[in-house]
Amino acid sequence: MATEEQIRESLDQVLVPGAMRSLVKLNLVRDINVSDEKASIALASAALSPQTQDWLKAKAGEVVRGLDGIKEAEIGFVEASPKELNDIRHVVAVMSGKGGVGKSLVTGLIGLSLARRGYEVGILDADITGPSIPRMFGISGRPAGSETGIIPPLSKAEIEIMSINLLLPHEDDAVIWRGPLIAKVITQFWEDVLWGKLDYLLVDLPPGTADAPLTVMQTLPLSGVIIAFTPQELATMVVRKAVQMAQKMNIPIKGVVENMSYFLLPDSGKRIELFGRSKGQEMAKAAGAPLLGQFPIDPELAQLCDEGNIERYDSEELNSFAEAFLKAMSNNGR
Amino acid sequence: MATEEQIRESLDQVLVPGAMRSLVKLNLVRDINVSDEKASIALASAALSPQTQDWLKAKAGEVVRGLDGIKEAEIGFVEASPKELNDIRHVVAVMSGKGGVGKSLVTGLIGLSLARRGYEVGILDADITGPSIPRMFGISGRPAGSETGIIPPLSKAEIEIMSINLLLPHEDDAVIWRGPLIAKVITQFWEDVLWGKLDYLLVDLPPGTADAPLTVMQTLPLSGVIIAFTPQELATMVVRKAVQMAQKMNIPIKGVVENMSYFLLPDSGKRIELFGRSKGQEMAKAAGAPLLGQFPIDPELAQLCDEGNIERYDSEELNSFAEAFLKAMSNNGR
Repeated sequence: MATEEQIRESLDQVLVPGAMRSLVKLNLVRDINVSDEKASIALASAALSPQTQDWLKAKAGEVVRGLDGIKEAEIGFVEASPKELNDIRHVVAVMSGKGGVGKSLVTGLIGLSLARRGYEVGILDADITGPSIPRMFGISGRPAGSETGIIPPLSKAEIEIMSINLLLPHEDDAVIWRGPLIAKVITQFWEDVLWGKLDYLLVDLPPGTADAPLTVMQTLPLSGVIIAFTPQELATMVVRKAVQMAQKMNIPIKGVVENMSYFLLPDSGKRIELFGRSKGQEMAKAAGAPLLGQFPIDPELAQLCDEGNIERYDSEELNSFAEAFLKAMSNNGR
Repeated sequence: MATEEQIRESLDQVLVPGAMRSLVKLNLVRDINVSDEKASIALASAALSPQTQDWLKAKAGEVVRGLDGIKEAEIGFVEASPKELNDIRHVVAVMSGKGGVGKSLVTGLIGLSLARRGYEVGILDADITGPSIPRMFGISGRPAGSETGIIPPLSKAEIEIMSINLLLPHEDDAVIWRGPLIAKVITQFWEDVLWGKLDYLLVDLPPGTADAPLTVMQTLPLSGVIIAFTPQELATMVVRKAVQMAQKMNIPIKGVVENMSYFLLPDSGKRIELFGRSKGQEMAKAAGAPLLGQFPIDPELAQLCDEGNIERYDSEELNSFAEAFLKAMSNNGR
């Protein structure tokens, strides 16, 4: 007769409509009981419309009844909020204080490298007034869900993504809100989105050290932050404010990343430092954290981001960055 | 006997300690009366400590008594807030929605070009959590002033500058504030700073469309905004949010400026578009405003900004940008 484990495996084949992740990955399977050739399964109803619940009930029943020794399958629904269901190993925020230094790019690059390595990854775009993540990943559809929760859409590489831009009628609509409303939306992206089971939830923070980063640092159980910067003195001065904020809020800085570090001349391959000498070692020292990577200005990468194809990007720099990130996370990780 | 006009001219030679601008330029001369070889002068006391008032009383008396036919000079002080005294022809905000596209650079470049052309200019740095202006202009001293007002320091080219970074113990101290506090400081920079008589007050906005730009648009009598952007699609998408915000708030967009538009290879002079094709015409159309200029990525300019020497910068692009800016301001200017 089929074991609980086998039933769970079969439910991992049932994709939730709209989410395209399985019942198990979304952590919707609350209880499995097997006795006398009868399986009783309790699913959580969070973020599922009545129609979706009906469909899942039929589909799960069908799959389970196909298992060896199971003649009857009873599928019921129990209430649970997305917050109760979410089971996330690491929440990591990418910040910089300064705008335009490539926070979203770094968030995207970490996300796609982890997904390639088989980790389950989500990205929470906390930049409410200037969200870049959906465009970078080529996502524009409205998230599915119900009154009880939102289901984040998946990127091509199966990264869960939630961003205010997925909720706006047009991607260039302005969100003219003061801080309290921005804080509320970020909290909702944490509490009302059904992320399910994730190894990593990456949070893309907006510039500054005001409402959005404060809310993220006070509300989300961060394992740590990654600090992005560019070599310009002016930028690093502002980035040091972000370092100080993380320190004051007792959030471990897991590493620093330099963007626009250099440019390789197309013909000669000569390296030019467009924004001054690398500040990698200096920033690592200021943050008390390792330098995880240095990325050049790369017109090809810029184009991939513009086209929504960041997930096609690959490079040696990216691989060594991903390895350094994973190493940093395994040190004193929460 | 000396006329009122001559007395005013002589008071224009009296520099206010700490400000290094004259009594007349700071608009502190409230009343001048001449009769029977006696001049009676009323000065405003805003932002002046008792010691500064004493010094100014003595100095102004001395200067006026040196005039032809004036035997006696009576100098008195009247109360007036900086807000009542400020006499500013144009308030122009530089915004973008997106961070790191060169708002502060554009603000600085407009400021120095106008100062070179003989205009009286001030810069209000409304980027409270990521201020770049003081570093760019090489200013670090604490502003002078008293309980009744703040006197902004002057740059080398005599631009008045006010920024939160001039009030912090260290320039890389983080300002970890939520929106209401940020809005309050910006309002203070407008109401409590003795700007005096200015042709242009330029406001450097932070990224986003939240508290800071909202406060500036609701509180300051803006003649218009200048929109800065870079050619990356991702950036222009966010910048269009800023365009929409200005339109919704009924603030005229006076022009758009493209930064990091191209890079000239050092050896061949060949033009490379690092972040994609120019979006100049497209953004001008979206904003319904002229394209005022296009600036390349210029390592030399980046270095000047890092060293606090932006005022040494000059180029053909800058000159034509300044002319285009002035032309745009003279069209339907408020």
